[in-house]
Amino acid sequence: MSEHRPTSPWTVEPPLPGSYRAIAKLGKPDDIKLPSDRYVSLLKRELGLEDAFFAKPPQDGNKPVRIDGGNALGKDVIRAVAAIVGEENVQCDAYNRIKYSHGKIQEEIFNLKRGIIHEITGAAVHPRHAEDVGRIVALCSRRKIPVYAYGGGSSVNKGFLPERAGITLVLGTHMNRVLEINERNHTCRVQAGCMGPDLERALNGAPELFGTTLRFTCGHFPQSFELSSVGGWVLTLGSGQASTYYGDAANLVLSMEAVTPTGIIRTSDYPSTATGPRVMDMMKGSEGAFGILTELTIRIFRYMPENRKYFGFLFPDWCSAVGATREISQGEFGLPAVLRISDAEETDHAFQMYPVPSAVEFILKARGCRPGRRCLSVGTVEGDLDFATLVRKKVRRIARHFGGVNVTGRAAREWEKDRYRSFLIAEAMTDYDILLDTVETPVRWDNIHEIHEKVHRFADSVPGTMCISHASHFYPSGTNLYFIFGIRGGVKEYTAFRNGLIDAMVQAGGSPSHHHGVGRLMAPWIERFLGSTEMEAIRSIKRHFDPDNIMNPGHPFGPATQKKGKGQRR
Amino acid sequence: MSEHRPTSPWTVEPPLPGSYRAIAKLGKPDDIKLPSDRYVSLLKRELGLEDAFFAKPPQDGNKPVRIDGGNALGKDVIRAVAAIVGEENVQCDAYNRIKYSHGKIQEEIFNLKRGIIHEITGAAVHPRHAEDVGRIVALCSRRKIPVYAYGGGSSVNKGFLPERAGITLVLGTHMNRVLEINERNHTCRVQAGCMGPDLERALNGAPELFGTTLRFTCGHFPQSFELSSVGGWVLTLGSGQASTYYGDAANLVLSMEAVTPTGIIRTSDYPSTATGPRVMDMMKGSEGAFGILTELTIRIFRYMPENRKYFGFLFPDWCSAVGATREISQGEFGLPAVLRISDAEETDHAFQMYPVPSAVEFILKARGCRPGRRCLSVGTVEGDLDFATLVRKKVRRIARHFGGVNVTGRAAREWEKDRYRSFLIAEAMTDYDILLDTVETPVRWDNIHEIHEKVHRFADSVPGTMCISHASHFYPSGTNLYFIFGIRGGVKEYTAFRNGLIDAMVQAGGSPSHHHGVGRLMAPWIERFLGSTEMEAIRSIKRHFDPDNIMNPGHPFGPATQKKGKGQRR
Repeated sequence: MSEHRPTSPWTVEPPLPGSYRAIAKLGKPDDIKLPSDRYVSLLKRELGLEDAFFAKPPQDGNKPVRIDGGNALGKDVIRAVAAIVGEENVQCDAYNRIKYSHGKIQEEIFNLKRGIIHEITGAAVHPRHAEDVGRIVALCSRRKIPVYAYGGGSSVNKGFLPERAGITLVLGTHMNRVLEINERNHTCRVQAGCMGPDLERALNGAPELFGTTLRFTCGHFPQSFELSSVGGWVLTLGSGQASTYYGDAANLVLSMEAVTPTGIIRTSDYPSTATGPRVMDMMKGSEGAFGILTELTIRIFRYMPENRKYFGFLFPDWCSAVGATREISQGEFGLPAVLRISDAEETDHAFQMYPVPSAVEFILKARGCRPGRRCLSVGTVEGDLDFATLVRKKVRRIARHFGGVNVTGRAAREWEKDRYRSFLIAEAMTDYDILLDTVETPVRWDNIHEIHEKVHRFADSVPGTMCISHASHFYPSGTNLYFIFGIRGGVKEYTAFRNGLIDAMVQAGGSPSHHHGVGRLMAPWIERFLGSTEMEAIRSIKRHFDPDNIMNPGHPFGPATQKKGKGQRR
Repeated sequence: MSEHRPTSPWTVEPPLPGSYRAIAKLGKPDDIKLPSDRYVSLLKRELGLEDAFFAKPPQDGNKPVRIDGGNALGKDVIRAVAAIVGEENVQCDAYNRIKYSHGKIQEEIFNLKRGIIHEITGAAVHPRHAEDVGRIVALCSRRKIPVYAYGGGSSVNKGFLPERAGITLVLGTHMNRVLEINERNHTCRVQAGCMGPDLERALNGAPELFGTTLRFTCGHFPQSFELSSVGGWVLTLGSGQASTYYGDAANLVLSMEAVTPTGIIRTSDYPSTATGPRVMDMMKGSEGAFGILTELTIRIFRYMPENRKYFGFLFPDWCSAVGATREISQGEFGLPAVLRISDAEETDHAFQMYPVPSAVEFILKARGCRPGRRCLSVGTVEGDLDFATLVRKKVRRIARHFGGVNVTGRAAREWEKDRYRSFLIAEAMTDYDILLDTVETPVRWDNIHEIHEKVHRFADSVPGTMCISHASHFYPSGTNLYFIFGIRGGVKEYTAFRNGLIDAMVQAGGSPSHHHGVGRLMAPWIERFLGSTEMEAIRSIKRHFDPDNIMNPGHPFGPATQKKGKGQRR
């Protein structure tokens, strides 16, 4: 519990170094985003909070970390690992063991701030190159030691939670470089631990850094962009906010290098080759359960930010917003980069947060866009200038056809400014008994309404909660639904509500995840969704690459295990 | 040998029913394309044929088929299969056993016409539906009987050659229907045995046949379009001639149903779902070695043939043609549907076949397009009208920048008319001792010239042969090279030359195939290309789905086997 009594209800200082809060913090220590007064009012109303709710002292977790008990990982193993990577690259102190055992799902952050920790890794190990990874995996194969991979640490599904004491390979410390930009092929060779901003900086600055003629962009901008690694994007099947144009992370990869207990995989980087099932595709989405991704060759795109154009529309209702985006996705004229539609609840929230003058409100209502029904759409077009201009023209025409009112590109620009930071508000909320989180599923055009309705029906049935949603990754045959939810209470209430939302999603025909991945979170749903034949096929590849289940054990792609005590081995 | 002495050097009549020639025939019995006089002159010059070469009697194979020896497949098995599918759907006569054991690689056609056959299947079985397939696969699993799948039978790499007597499932007889067109999702559910023209007819005629508002197209038009099945496209990783816009066959699939000895796979049809490695992707390219594909859900596109525009350019040389198409592929303004560049040899052939008036020739030379160096490019743009117009405008501008002379869309239209029939000329050639065939590889922009040069250098080193090439499937990071070669002599000379070409391709860094697949033909190269770690990963999936190696045994994805006698079992 904090020693100081804040003057604001929010903890505005950077976390105390070495504290639980420092581990729980998203982004840089001093990157703090506090909720606006309007947002606080909204939350109070939605969640039924008493006026004085945020006056009580926050649970900020500014307490030094501590681990009770020893390290189940033997000293001999730690010595052997240090002999490979150097002692300076092995950390066994409490802070780093806890830090590299946690992702960023809200319950982890909530618990960390209250000093509650579960399983933790035996050592955080920072390999210098693929050879280190190879030698460590070989050592761990011989000794049957669990190996976890930590990329950016932004997992929201307990993707690398060490259920048994083992070692966690931190790829972002040394294996974080852009190795080559191939201008002729428009490709880039990059180490798996490279973080989003470092990759994008190298690509944007390619003429200065790599002597190219053109500047490039990676095209992949998930909300976690600043907190996630290239390897993580691919291993969890992520989607960026501009995926409608650039494609999902899995589509951006041309080849990879991965170290598995069975051997090293180095695939060819041809865009297409009719030489059997692609082993690279098997690694996509494998979430560290097959091996450690060390290097990728990815597609890169010409960087032409000067051609980016913004658009925004307000549709009378959800059906017309869905109809317009379906037509845009199927029109065969090229695709916008960013495309988003908010449902009526999310749109109402936006209007409450950013009220418009009453004259504007009058016009909007006159044009059929009434609170409680209207839906906001924002987006961008990119690429060649003539192409971007054409796509925006087509988007405008289609939006008009579906009753959309052009609200200019301003909302899109505002959204873009805050795109990597909007979720930081949730940090302040976990200081109190409020958890804000998200679940998401792909949908087809023919079941989007059913899934949307059923999930909201469940959410509405739980008092003291809120749930708003949008669609943000478009394909000709469908899109995704992203549900942002909030609940007052502790982890127990949060877990019950979140699981209920996922249940509703999957029961309505959705998948447990469109782009967050599986992790341990989705264990109860993954086999139900895939079916046992598919699940067994995935597990058979797992057995091939990792016969002793040392790679990310505890993940549902491995053999089903019972819950065991700390450090216990199979 | 034929009983009649032809008045033309070519066999102009349809094959004798029940003859070897009838099996060897590509396309409909009466679809005969004879080489023009100009083509014959060209061949004589290129291959060094004497004047009277085509005067000797052709080896037309109009002889009734005959099988020496019995059927290694036991009568009890045949009875058991007939009990599942009905007697009318089991064929054990010589004609059908030979027919369904052969694809269309030139050596098969050449040998068939000379009455030379190797291994043949025990029975051609025509399942009525997925349930039949399931019961047959279960029966064959119990009895360890090899199962081969026959889609359109257009394999050019011995994809389903029965090395051991077993049964061949013919999917095109009954399992050939378009089951559903989902207008909302722009998807189509189709049985794996549906042939290209039947699919396209259903999609083009969707309003009349399925009550939709829009007409659709499948977007996949390989040269084998009329001779191949939807399942075959996906299982061999095919590419259509319009793949630059529509994507390769593998990209068109949203979900599939497949019967394997281990179980039935039915994947979800979401365009994207972050639920682990996609089992559907493992089946792509599996060439019948994992199981039998029974049904697919594929993307379909709006059919707007009225928007199609044609273009054609003559570039001064190969480097400028490659440079222009690279810029087109990387320009971020949308992509043409068809895009092709012929190298100098192929362009010279085109001019010899279709000479231009000397005034035109004068102008072309004046603009830097000289015989022996100039390269023809043809293509189309499709999609929305404004989009197609924009893409053609951009293509024209880029072509001009690279020194291309606009030769109008006429050559593209002519090419399109003959697109599914041009290879029929090879049929007449196998009547003599001439084999015309193709090999193809993906290339990156940074190794296209090296591979092109090295393959041609090898071809030039073998006297009495010809080799011309083009690139016809474009991606931002590369394209493919397609080599058309001809050689005088029998199968021995042909095999040595073809293998030399593949050796040259792979040694220069190419892959054994861009879109024809692996089959038994690529066995000597596949592991060298993939590496043993990838090869073992593919084989481990094979073992999972098909532990007894009953699916397409003899294929290199299965365990390495020694050459065995007819009908021998493991």
